[in-house]
Amino acid sequence: MQLASRLDDLGTETAFAVAAAAADWKAQGHEVYPFHLGDLDFPLAPHIVEAMNKAIADGKTTYCPGPGIPELRAALADDIGSRRGTSFAPENVTVMTGGKPVITKFVQAVMNPGDEVLYPNPGFPIYESQIEYHGGVAKAYRYLPTDTGFAIDLDQVRSLITDKTVAIIYNDLQNPISAESTQAEREAIAQLAIEHDLWVLSDEAYFEMRYEGESSSIATLPGMAERTVILYTFSKKFAMTGSRLGAAVAPVELSRVFSTMNTNDESCTTHYVQWAGIAALQGTQQPVQDMLQVLKGRRDAACEIVNSTPGMSVRVPKSTFYLFPDVTEAVELVGAKDLADFAEQALHNTGVSFCTRNHFGRPQEGEDRTYIRFAYSGLSEDRIREGLTGLKQWIESAR
Amino acid sequence: MQLASRLDDLGTETAFAVAAAAADWKAQGHEVYPFHLGDLDFPLAPHIVEAMNKAIADGKTTYCPGPGIPELRAALADDIGSRRGTSFAPENVTVMTGGKPVITKFVQAVMNPGDEVLYPNPGFPIYESQIEYHGGVAKAYRYLPTDTGFAIDLDQVRSLITDKTVAIIYNDLQNPISAESTQAEREAIAQLAIEHDLWVLSDEAYFEMRYEGESSSIATLPGMAERTVILYTFSKKFAMTGSRLGAAVAPVELSRVFSTMNTNDESCTTHYVQWAGIAALQGTQQPVQDMLQVLKGRRDAACEIVNSTPGMSVRVPKSTFYLFPDVTEAVELVGAKDLADFAEQALHNTGVSFCTRNHFGRPQEGEDRTYIRFAYSGLSEDRIREGLTGLKQWIESAR
Ligand SMILES: Cc1ncc(COP(=O)(O)O)c(C=O)c1O
Ligand SMILES: Cc1ncc(COP(=O)(O)O)c(C=O)c1O
Repeated sequence: MQLASRLDDLGTETAFAVAAAAADWKAQGHEVYPFHLGDLDFPLAPHIVEAMNKAIADGKTTYCPGPGIPELRAALADDIGSRRGTSFAPENVTVMTGGKPVITKFVQAVMNPGDEVLYPNPGFPIYESQIEYHGGVAKAYRYLPTDTGFAIDLDQVRSLITDKTVAIIYNDLQNPISAESTQAEREAIAQLAIEHDLWVLSDEAYFEMRYEGESSSIATLPGMAERTVILYTFSKKFAMTGSRLGAAVAPVELSRVFSTMNTNDESCTTHYVQWAGIAALQGTQQPVQDMLQVLKGRRDAACEIVNSTPGMSVRVPKSTFYLFPDVTEAVELVGAKDLADFAEQALHNTGVSFCTRNHFGRPQEGEDRTYIRFAYSGLSEDRIREGLTGLKQWIESAR
Repeated sequence: MQLASRLDDLGTETAFAVAAAAADWKAQGHEVYPFHLGDLDFPLAPHIVEAMNKAIADGKTTYCPGPGIPELRAALADDIGSRRGTSFAPENVTVMTGGKPVITKFVQAVMNPGDEVLYPNPGFPIYESQIEYHGGVAKAYRYLPTDTGFAIDLDQVRSLITDKTVAIIYNDLQNPISAESTQAEREAIAQLAIEHDLWVLSDEAYFEMRYEGESSSIATLPGMAERTVILYTFSKKFAMTGSRLGAAVAPVELSRVFSTMNTNDESCTTHYVQWAGIAALQGTQQPVQDMLQVLKGRRDAACEIVNSTPGMSVRVPKSTFYLFPDVTEAVELVGAKDLADFAEQALHNTGVSFCTRNHFGRPQEGEDRTYIRFAYSGLSEDRIREGLTGLKQWIESAR
């Protein structure tokens, strides 16, 4: 009996290996500071839990429509549209079991085998995996360091587009590097998409995870609504990562495709969790504000220590909950032979666990700086200080 | 911009069109008796809801492992193994968002484009859709009426196997026809699988939905554990259709593949719903017993009326919650031009809504009898009597 050949092209999130190593180290009785996971240590807000229980009591425990219950589709169309200064119809919205399913369903819907799709790298690792799994050619585009963070290498993007390019994946407010587009950059990407008639997957998982400034969606630029799929998720904003609730906002022809895919793949998204989602969108936004306030304090604490650590530096990001410090010199200081070795040494010497650049897509040619990713969403400010200070002292002592 | 060619081969559950027609008729102010949907009108048991709320309070609201939380994998291995008189390890179990995802993940894992997969027809429509969507050749096998129900046409199955056949989908306790294998039939299928080195997807969605007798899994026959994937679901037994919780039980090499697929497709299944699943498996089974008792009463009521309706007949099934009556003469009696017309006339004359044979895979050549499917899981016994008596009177009056 065979396993199918397509499995040879199925990637994964190698970050899970980091989580396993951290768990292992902890099980051996060591203190561990988990900076590796993009998860949140905030409770589900009471009004959200209440709405879920009310839905259960009301019998919302049955199958429901593949594209989502009409009430949630309408609530999402309203909320996502108004926060972006545009408007969507419920027919543009397909509810999914998180934001992640939008990636595989987008790729399957617009890409034939052999077609090329541009994607950010370093970036969310599932882009690369899903493009290749479904027979496409994943073409990585890079970011360049700037005075304020990172910028997309637009010249590279331009040079990568060929007759076979059908789509570009764009993740403003970026995981892992927390890059944020200027309006000019966003417009440049939109212009390339229009010029070359590309579909755009706009991964807006962190659209509302911001501490300063305002987010803006590429879908609202002229000529973009008809070619853009927005990945929306409840995971980050409402600390609902484990609830598995998200949505695609797409032109109606694609929404119909997504809906049929849902019917084939999982029938529907958990019925009563969809009612919880309505409460999240329409109820008090105080828990969201409070959480962002706490996250901001964590960000500031983490940045301060990272920037006082020898051989490490990072720009203070205005959004997401990740830091992506350049650690090139720190790796040398401790005499690590590569990033994996650096991470292992750090874990064993300080208990600090993190992902590295290598967990976010295959490194591109010519990369001469090395980076790691700290997620500061899952530890208290005190624990952040404690962990990162230990890391700092370890590197200092190697000097 | 293109849509991908693979979408041309994506089927769906056309039963949703029946649901839409019924909803439409109801919205026009008519009484509707919904026999079309395989859903249950039973509440989520209180101890299940309680366990879910406890999990939420305990912070089980974060991401969790792709293959499922260890506690649920262990509970499922125990429960599924012991009820089948065998044993499984937690490593054999991959938690999924319902039983349905097992179908697409199985097909993707074992079938290359061009390979052939045998599947039951009439049968659950997603088999055919997923085989074809992923580039395989879906080869339908049929059932023949017997004195007690239906039997697989084993000669046909044998004749369909070629060098390109890689798997057979087998749904003992069958949707839509409620067929149930004899031990001899189950062994014959197993023997063919072993002889031709086939993977088997054993869809056991209704394994515990039975009123008499005992269920038995093909996975427990000699030589079968290493080639069989069991589709398990909480949907029917625990009236958890809207909770979206199920699992694959598979050889470890396939479990690993399913786990990676989960990581790619949706990260994990709703965290706190998995804790609810543990309570369902390990808590009181009284609600399950009570529900089966009620369903049995509905079955008996429905069978009695169907078998006293002119031109309709059905064997009393020992399991599932479907009746698949032969309605060949009834269709003629009312002068309907085909099954779709019969269903439409029935809805408009009596409010009784149902799926027909044509919603369960493309009809095969040489079918000379026509069938419809009544699901008696979503209406009370009184409503069943009311609806089906109206249907009977309508047909009687056409005589
Ligand atoms: C950039 C990005 N996109 C999408 C997701 C998917 O999140 P979810 O599936 O929980 O909505 C994540 C989660 O970490 C992410 O970082
Ligand atoms: C035969 C069969 N298999 C699988 C399923 C999938 O059910 P679920 O995805 O709710 O577990 C169903 C549901 O009707 C079914 O009838």
